[in-house]
Amino acid sequence: MQTIRTKQFSTLMIAMVMAIAVSGCTSQSAGVKPETLSIEKQGSFAVGGTIVQTPGTFDPIKQGAYSPMGVDSTGQTLHGDHATVFYQIPPKAHHLPLVFWHGHGESMRTWQTTPDGREGFQNIFLKKGYATYLVDQPRRGLSGKSTQPAAISAAADEQLWFGIFRLGAWPDYYPNVQFSKDPEALNQFYRQMTPNTGPYDASLNIAAMSKLFDKMGDGILVTHSQSGGPGWKTAIKDSRVKAVVSYEPGGDFIFPEGQGPDNITLKGRSFPLPKVPMAEFKKLTEIPIVIYYGDNIPESESNNPGQEQWRVFLNIAEQFRDVVNANGGDVTLVHLPDIGVYGNTHFPMSDLNNEKIADLLSQWLKDKHLQ
Amino acid sequence: MQTIRTKQFSTLMIAMVMAIAVSGCTSQSAGVKPETLSIEKQGSFAVGGTIVQTPGTFDPIKQGAYSPMGVDSTGQTLHGDHATVFYQIPPKAHHLPLVFWHGHGESMRTWQTTPDGREGFQNIFLKKGYATYLVDQPRRGLSGKSTQPAAISAAADEQLWFGIFRLGAWPDYYPNVQFSKDPEALNQFYRQMTPNTGPYDASLNIAAMSKLFDKMGDGILVTHSQSGGPGWKTAIKDSRVKAVVSYEPGGDFIFPEGQGPDNITLKGRSFPLPKVPMAEFKKLTEIPIVIYYGDNIPESESNNPGQEQWRVFLNIAEQFRDVVNANGGDVTLVHLPDIGVYGNTHFPMSDLNNEKIADLLSQWLKDKHLQ
Repeated sequence: MQTIRTKQFSTLMIAMVMAIAVSGCTSQSAGVKPETLSIEKQGSFAVGGTIVQTPGTFDPIKQGAYSPMGVDSTGQTLHGDHATVFYQIPPKAHHLPLVFWHGHGESMRTWQTTPDGREGFQNIFLKKGYATYLVDQPRRGLSGKSTQPAAISAAADEQLWFGIFRLGAWPDYYPNVQFSKDPEALNQFYRQMTPNTGPYDASLNIAAMSKLFDKMGDGILVTHSQSGGPGWKTAIKDSRVKAVVSYEPGGDFIFPEGQGPDNITLKGRSFPLPKVPMAEFKKLTEIPIVIYYGDNIPESESNNPGQEQWRVFLNIAEQFRDVVNANGGDVTLVHLPDIGVYGNTHFPMSDLNNEKIADLLSQWLKDKHLQ
Repeated sequence: MQTIRTKQFSTLMIAMVMAIAVSGCTSQSAGVKPETLSIEKQGSFAVGGTIVQTPGTFDPIKQGAYSPMGVDSTGQTLHGDHATVFYQIPPKAHHLPLVFWHGHGESMRTWQTTPDGREGFQNIFLKKGYATYLVDQPRRGLSGKSTQPAAISAAADEQLWFGIFRLGAWPDYYPNVQFSKDPEALNQFYRQMTPNTGPYDASLNIAAMSKLFDKMGDGILVTHSQSGGPGWKTAIKDSRVKAVVSYEPGGDFIFPEGQGPDNITLKGRSFPLPKVPMAEFKKLTEIPIVIYYGDNIPESESNNPGQEQWRVFLNIAEQFRDVVNANGGDVTLVHLPDIGVYGNTHFPMSDLNNEKIADLLSQWLKDKHLQ
């Protein structure tokens, strides 16, 4: 293990030196801190979505006053179900941008400042010379406008997520966990979550993400947890997705008809796995894919649901890797403890060792000529 | 009018030259575009908020599995009602940052890329050398987690906002409106809105904004529309607010006991205006304040509610200016058409002439020694 760690540290040093060398600003300016970000362009936009048109004719005189009691929708429209994107492009960026797509209950905050206040993947990969596109999927965060109504329950549920996100089994952190014990870190972590503002609909999310790639051009899709499943479908749908990086994807991996498992079984309950015609599945064999899972995933069945679901998902991930690769694909599955990287939660991108996690990805991108 | 415009153009040119001169990156690097942003630090965090603790003891084994049908909240917490902030600090920034606070139905998107795809105040003021702090107030956008439940109606209401936001009286734009007629601009404008995810509560918003200033230090508060009213209260509450810039604030101006109007009357209905003891009100006389209103606000009562509310609010704004200044304060009220700036909507910061609007603010900040 020590050998691997030393090797990774050297790689990190090389990557840091390279990041300084490729930065248009820091390489040319005396007196500017090497950490300074140089941004050639940044901005935000909505992409995708649907429009509801209510019949009738709107009368701006009769219907033009706001009332907190409700609205007369006659002749009015509602634009919703879009994704919102905040992008930053450094000078002389690598030719493929990174598109970061959050998981359940999360938003673009996932990729920004970490709960303990350090730099997240947004800054880390900007400094490595990548354009970054941070997404709020439809009906989440800045993309709150939904064409379907929703009730937000405001239920107290954070100890549940403490477990599912594998910080520990409440009230205990896992002993080796890569998460700060400073109470403020947990406070920030909980406040990073944000609810659905409409019914969750994976097909809307796939449609909006595909529109983003159409607008942006070729890029690398980085998914996390719940966006893993729709991420595979986005890559099948849109050939502009040139690679997929998936952190701890959920169990909804895609298999070709007649191959791989038909079901996923979790705590005695069975759910069907998506199957697609081989012609579609083939697209997943034509791009490089890397999948990462963190630590504290048990090897055998556990009575702790926060851990058990990840044991099952990791098992399906192994089968996905094998089926894609048996059909000529290029999937790398990294269970981080197997390469000597310990203690990662469900959020490797913001864990205490996220510089190391970023460096692993950076090396993979380089190996696959995706820079 | 021509004279004023020429003068503003010259000021803009000077400001542009200065922005280039103060930028650590662009002034020192050959071959980097002068528009390149240099960012010494950027990140995001939650601030303020409340915590709900449900009685009992959480059992990670029994309660640890996610169910879309609902959650057993026994022994669980809920963190909500915080603001979320995305900040960017350029090298050698002016000593007072700008804190941008959105209005009703909006989020930090208000200050980012404009609906027609140009740079918003976020970028414009970064290039002018200001640190920018963009806020999503509690229960909005990235701060979606609320400790109170809410129903999102998904009602079609956009033609109502087309009127209240003074793009025109649907389906017609005002003839001189500073808003692109490209349908995509209106599409982006509508998709910029995002609903409340909990009941609107001005006191929560004031508390979170005050916490932001406590964390950040002295700064300039920039409000818009609905945040105007709680903005005055934040300035009274927190002496770190060193100036207030308010774009088209709502009618809830604050007056001292025994002075100014007692009510606001809109379409025959009367609402009481907040009154505070002179000791509190005095704080508004101790900082410079500038208020801007745009165009197409009628001079006499109008039957168009989208216009009429702004006529009333502008009238109250004039009384606010007079009362603050009579008590030794320094309020500048700019009705933009009065200085030859025409066609502005309720969103001057993202209108087609937003560079000019930014330049007016920049000059005011300079005049008041707030840089």
